[in-house]
Amino acid sequence: MTASLSGFPELLPSQRFIELRVIDRLRYCFELHGFAPVETRAAEPLDSLLRKGEIDKEVYVLRRLHAADDDGDVGLGLHFDLTVPFARYVLDNAGHLEFPFRRYQIQKVWRGERPQEGRYREFTQADIDIVGRDVLPVHHDVEIARVMAEALGGLNFLPPLRLQVNNRKLIEGFCLGLGVPDVPAVLRAIDRLDKVPPDIVATLLREDAGLTAEHAEKCLALAEIRSGDTSFVSRVWALGVSHPLLDEGLDELAAVIEGCAGISGVSVEADLRIARGLDYYTGTVFETRMTGFDALGSVCSGGRYDSLATDGRTTYPGVGISLGVTRMLVPLFQRHVLTGTRSVPSAVLVALPSDDDRHRCDLVAQSLRARGIPTEVAASAQKYGKQIRYAERRGIPFVWFPGTDGEPDELTDIRTGAQSPADASSWLPPVEDLHPQVISTKESSAISSDVP
Amino acid sequence: MTASLSGFPELLPSQRFIELRVIDRLRYCFELHGFAPVETRAAEPLDSLLRKGEIDKEVYVLRRLHAADDDGDVGLGLHFDLTVPFARYVLDNAGHLEFPFRRYQIQKVWRGERPQEGRYREFTQADIDIVGRDVLPVHHDVEIARVMAEALGGLNFLPPLRLQVNNRKLIEGFCLGLGVPDVPAVLRAIDRLDKVPPDIVATLLREDAGLTAEHAEKCLALAEIRSGDTSFVSRVWALGVSHPLLDEGLDELAAVIEGCAGISGVSVEADLRIARGLDYYTGTVFETRMTGFDALGSVCSGGRYDSLATDGRTTYPGVGISLGVTRMLVPLFQRHVLTGTRSVPSAVLVALPSDDDRHRCDLVAQSLRARGIPTEVAASAQKYGKQIRYAERRGIPFVWFPGTDGEPDELTDIRTGAQSPADASSWLPPVEDLHPQVISTKESSAISSDVP
Repeated sequence: MTASLSGFPELLPSQRFIELRVIDRLRYCFELHGFAPVETRAAEPLDSLLRKGEIDKEVYVLRRLHAADDDGDVGLGLHFDLTVPFARYVLDNAGHLEFPFRRYQIQKVWRGERPQEGRYREFTQADIDIVGRDVLPVHHDVEIARVMAEALGGLNFLPPLRLQVNNRKLIEGFCLGLGVPDVPAVLRAIDRLDKVPPDIVATLLREDAGLTAEHAEKCLALAEIRSGDTSFVSRVWALGVSHPLLDEGLDELAAVIEGCAGISGVSVEADLRIARGLDYYTGTVFETRMTGFDALGSVCSGGRYDSLATDGRTTYPGVGISLGVTRMLVPLFQRHVLTGTRSVPSAVLVALPSDDDRHRCDLVAQSLRARGIPTEVAASAQKYGKQIRYAERRGIPFVWFPGTDGEPDELTDIRTGAQSPADASSWLPPVEDLHPQVISTKESSAISSDVP
Repeated sequence: MTASLSGFPELLPSQRFIELRVIDRLRYCFELHGFAPVETRAAEPLDSLLRKGEIDKEVYVLRRLHAADDDGDVGLGLHFDLTVPFARYVLDNAGHLEFPFRRYQIQKVWRGERPQEGRYREFTQADIDIVGRDVLPVHHDVEIARVMAEALGGLNFLPPLRLQVNNRKLIEGFCLGLGVPDVPAVLRAIDRLDKVPPDIVATLLREDAGLTAEHAEKCLALAEIRSGDTSFVSRVWALGVSHPLLDEGLDELAAVIEGCAGISGVSVEADLRIARGLDYYTGTVFETRMTGFDALGSVCSGGRYDSLATDGRTTYPGVGISLGVTRMLVPLFQRHVLTGTRSVPSAVLVALPSDDDRHRCDLVAQSLRARGIPTEVAASAQKYGKQIRYAERRGIPFVWFPGTDGEPDELTDIRTGAQSPADASSWLPPVEDLHPQVISTKESSAISSDVP
């Protein structure tokens, strides 16, 4: 972990292996569910970036160093998320896409924020979205939740993750059932439950949202409901509020929770305090907490948009969720929760008896590589002790000693010192030594990071 | 292929699959040879980007939209290659890296150039470099050539590629042997052989480089030499020029050509016209041509730097080569040389008999996915004919029909219409149907794109 420029974290190779394994597993899971890969350009016209008024000051504007006034270039900025560019991509390519369109997108985004832990100026996000033309049935909300839950569950070296689901219709229907006038103000107040104690939120509900004390209590009671199954439904009913929109929200949320039953490695729960106050979601909403890292806030968020994009004639509803890869991993690297077993991909170092043996050693390496074993040849014909330390410093588990004068080759596992004769045309390492592994202090044991 | 913003090409999903397969194969090959992954931030301080004076006007400068004067932010620009940021990364992390340090880096870069075919404002490069501390023996030049040649050879769906190698010492030694005063002017003139006829280059050699007519002829004769083996050595000798630096260059070039013998799928040749006129190489130089796409120029270039980076006390020599992934692929997409077999990863569409069957169909899909078969469930319970056309439009080869009333499930290969009973707990597709394939008109047959 280094960051010679504040807010722009960079990884050492042993850490980058872990990030790549995370991305590979996400990709594998997303493709398994039929999500197609999309990559959009890093730059968008400024006017489309600034349409969402909230974050205009976070945008990085691009200018060519020697741009002339008559260039006619449109003003460009770096994208700050993957949703705005994806919505534009859907409109640009609507004639070439089939709907419902499932896509995943794993890319860097940039924000000119004040850097702090969990907030970076450059970071990688992994998004999945399903977008429909005109309509998008609610079973796609279930699908999005299930796919991301399976993907997160597969990252078994991470601290425990909780995917928290709620539904805007549920909160809004509850407010309408109560007869509350200013629903957005209620959403904003509930959204603060993360940061301030309930009595402050109660005050906000009364003073900003104009609720009676009794209604504020009811809203707080709603926000305190959470369950890993559909028992939340009867607990909401017990609050004695009814409205058709509330029923719709309860049905949709119950469908998502039921649809995620049986996924291992991650807990999926209904959490009725999740409001996503500032975003324009219209139904299902998602947040995700990483145990022991509550201060990071949500590392994976999203929800349902009734209008992800529109060209004036056609509306494209969507549902999606975005995982903050950098936001999740960098704090784990900084606190040494995750470390890699080696700084190079090589499983084998072929030792060099003398400079004249380089060609012979290259042939050994080629033979090993032909069976998919990452291999490097020693850089110089130093004493064997030095060559072994060369391997040790890089975390390479095996050193291969080419035989001289007709002797067979010898192989040493430098972790144990065990030495044995070996044949370059047939030897295979234990599968867990083939590629760098992730060591997680979560369980303080090496966990294979191979992609299935 | 779309580009709603000139110079920023974007791919359709069927094309992005191909780009990802290219990147996966490169990564596989680079890691097999012990190259570690590095990713650097997209932004560098402007002063380090502008140190190479040649391309200052191509840099995109970053500015935060509402930056205040007192922010104290250093001026940042987007990197225009991966060499400058890598050199900076080596200096930043020298204490954490082991030398010789092999790294690969596959990332977007940005240049504010006038867009034209093969020239983009945003494009992906795949670089490999080996960097040493103080010294870096020439066998690493051989290694870089061999690794990139193997990587290119593995991209068997591309038009034929020629990796052309030369050595600056060879040209410079030849000039010194002739007694030529202005070697850089000779390099610049020879570099133009690509674009202008030899007689114009002869004029440049006489008028700009100050050569006699006889010396200009000798230089042109040198530049015309090319061979796929080491026979170039005797042809150079036959020109009757001698100098110790020429011998050194001949030896180094012969080592690279010999070291690349036997690599399939790509031709590696000594080509004595390759000069890389504007770059600061000091030994081996590389360029790569794609047959039928000569106007693109070189798609993969690099060479040896005696000083890739220096902190004033320590010098880091390096040798590397950079593949223009976008530059190579986008023209192939535009001319339909490469197309993908499908626009989704799904190998199977599970048809939906009725909306009530969704859960049952989800279980079929889960069973297939558990064996690594990308699967999606039909979006709605339309007539089967419509569901089959849904699969057809996406290029999904198989449609799975869940049995009703105890009947077994049925599977249809919609390309042939062949139908057969199938069991979701054991069925496997032919391996070539598991993932999207690349169709190359080069051989007008589908070529598997599975890694490795």
